[in-house]
Amino acid sequence: MKVICNQSEIMGALNIALRAVSSKTSLPILECFLLEAKGEELVITTNDMELGIETKILCRVDNPGRIAVNARIFSDIIRKLPEEVVFLETDSNYVMYITCGKAKFKISGVSGEEFPMLPIGSKENAVTISQFTLKDMIAKTIFAISANDNTAIMTGENFEIKDGKLRVVAMDGHRIGIRNTELREEYKESNTIIPGKTLLEISKILSGNMDDKVDIYFMDKQVLFEFDKTVVLSRLIEGKYFPINPMLNSAYTTKITVNKKEISDCLDRALLLVKESEKRPVILDIKNGVMSLSINSSLGTMNEELEIIKDGDDLTICFNPKFLVDAFRAIDDETITLFMNGVKNPCFIRDANDTYIYLILPVISFVG
Amino acid sequence: MKVICNQSEIMGALNIALRAVSSKTSLPILECFLLEAKGEELVITTNDMELGIETKILCRVDNPGRIAVNARIFSDIIRKLPEEVVFLETDSNYVMYITCGKAKFKISGVSGEEFPMLPIGSKENAVTISQFTLKDMIAKTIFAISANDNTAIMTGENFEIKDGKLRVVAMDGHRIGIRNTELREEYKESNTIIPGKTLLEISKILSGNMDDKVDIYFMDKQVLFEFDKTVVLSRLIEGKYFPINPMLNSAYTTKITVNKKEISDCLDRALLLVKESEKRPVILDIKNGVMSLSINSSLGTMNEELEIIKDGDDLTICFNPKFLVDAFRAIDDETITLFMNGVKNPCFIRDANDTYIYLILPVISFVG
Repeated sequence: MKVICNQSEIMGALNIALRAVSSKTSLPILECFLLEAKGEELVITTNDMELGIETKILCRVDNPGRIAVNARIFSDIIRKLPEEVVFLETDSNYVMYITCGKAKFKISGVSGEEFPMLPIGSKENAVTISQFTLKDMIAKTIFAISANDNTAIMTGENFEIKDGKLRVVAMDGHRIGIRNTELREEYKESNTIIPGKTLLEISKILSGNMDDKVDIYFMDKQVLFEFDKTVVLSRLIEGKYFPINPMLNSAYTTKITVNKKEISDCLDRALLLVKESEKRPVILDIKNGVMSLSINSSLGTMNEELEIIKDGDDLTICFNPKFLVDAFRAIDDETITLFMNGVKNPCFIRDANDTYIYLILPVISFVG
Repeated sequence: MKVICNQSEIMGALNIALRAVSSKTSLPILECFLLEAKGEELVITTNDMELGIETKILCRVDNPGRIAVNARIFSDIIRKLPEEVVFLETDSNYVMYITCGKAKFKISGVSGEEFPMLPIGSKENAVTISQFTLKDMIAKTIFAISANDNTAIMTGENFEIKDGKLRVVAMDGHRIGIRNTELREEYKESNTIIPGKTLLEISKILSGNMDDKVDIYFMDKQVLFEFDKTVVLSRLIEGKYFPINPMLNSAYTTKITVNKKEISDCLDRALLLVKESEKRPVILDIKNGVMSLSINSSLGTMNEELEIIKDGDDLTICFNPKFLVDAFRAIDDETITLFMNGVKNPCFIRDANDTYIYLILPVISFVG
């Protein structure tokens, strides 16, 4: 293989491909980039057996070929090169020579034959959305997935295509985060669970531009994202997601509207008194026009009053303050509305169009 | 105690005082701020028994008094308050009430009586320099102190006042870093060893402004820095520093001048091939007009040529690349000059006025 490419272009592609490089693996080949020069392209592939990425750059190929090289070493070297033309050349012993300006490196690679290629099936029925929308929907729900492996389906997010809408749902047993978006076209129905790790990695690669598109192919056991010059393939989590529709109702006995920044700042202060090891609820005491938030912990006590608009009954209710903070952070609106049904039933934070719905279970043991 | 102060002012003072709060201590009182309201000031004191800080702010004192409060909790709370007026009030049980806007906090403190006050002796013969100069001299030598406690004096820096000059020296047995600065006045001679930790902390507090001054009092077993509204007191390291003057000579058999950015970038690339665990030297092959740098490691090999101006003999010499990188980073000049005396003797990197001198021992075992 002999290739001439541009330092910043190959570095951009390596940064994408690095997202699917195993850090903990007993298979050294999974710590590698597979580099493949053909036609006028250099194709870079990585695969950690859950997630696979293939990305490419245009370059001059003087000699086609393939080689696998350690991803960390290769990317560290390329990163430190001057922004100039980079020459990559391999010999028959899988030694790679990297030359750029006056710098010459020599590193050992291995044959690309044992590299596990991405099992990309036939691509049909792409769902197309903007990269911005996908990135945004992930960022605003992913915090609600479970970090705990006990319930595998809660470590992923439910992507549902139905009635011209994409709905993304995350839950951890104490709360649910839901984002809805209208699709431009009518697509075939589908219902899949995508691993949280896949979504975190892909949202780091997506440009976040409204004008850039991503095609999503929901397949039987896999999901494939295709955008720019990159393909990301991930396994799906097997199983059926929890039926959440029955939990979503719009009845309430107490409804409050509050300034988001004010309540968020207040909860930030309340969290100061909560140590990691100590789960103390924040107590919301809701009256006409005013809500007091208070917290007691071994470190001290805190009390603050906020102006609100209240509709319905007075209510004293307790929450894990972190769950409120997470939900508020995911909402862009200046004011937010909370719908409650007594001290034991879930609280809903939602907008008029159900663009977002955050459901949070109250902490009931502390209420008298 | 009852005090009314400004959130950003007290926060600024707390950030300074936090530098001398023990993180690992069996004495809970050392994790505290001592707050003392008197006259029109709030004085904040911290002491980790090696380093002590006293800083103050102007405020309205309605009731003088003192209390010790946990530094982390108190500073976390103050940091999160809105930028408004902060009311601090204590009762006879050492409970502190913090009120700001609508937020009310209550935390427990302890009597300030058991707090170890700073043993500030009589202050005489201050050496006055700009905060910029002190901060700069520390930053450009501190990397050369020893991280190893075996030789206590090498964990500090030697501050020597002599002949109207301040000389700061750091060394770790393989290299020496020296900075000299002219003083405005003639001061009494002194020669002390200041702990590295003290210097690191103080350089984080110093403003770095050329116009701001710092007074340094060299005392028998302590050094005291006084600047702005802050006093920093530190123990000294006992003992005599190594006599380094005999090591400094200006003879050379090979002298080279090289562009600093070019050689630094090249060494950055060379370091990519050096794992933490593996100490591989960089080999400098010096000829007329050109120097090649090369490195061999288990990860690969690297070779690069740089343009130089050479005076004296050709030379092939090996160094720990990290030592060269550290010294080059501490030099602001665009071109640097290295003075060498064969493969076994130290290399000097110095400017014409000896503002800086970096002495680096070569690695000799690898030279044939």
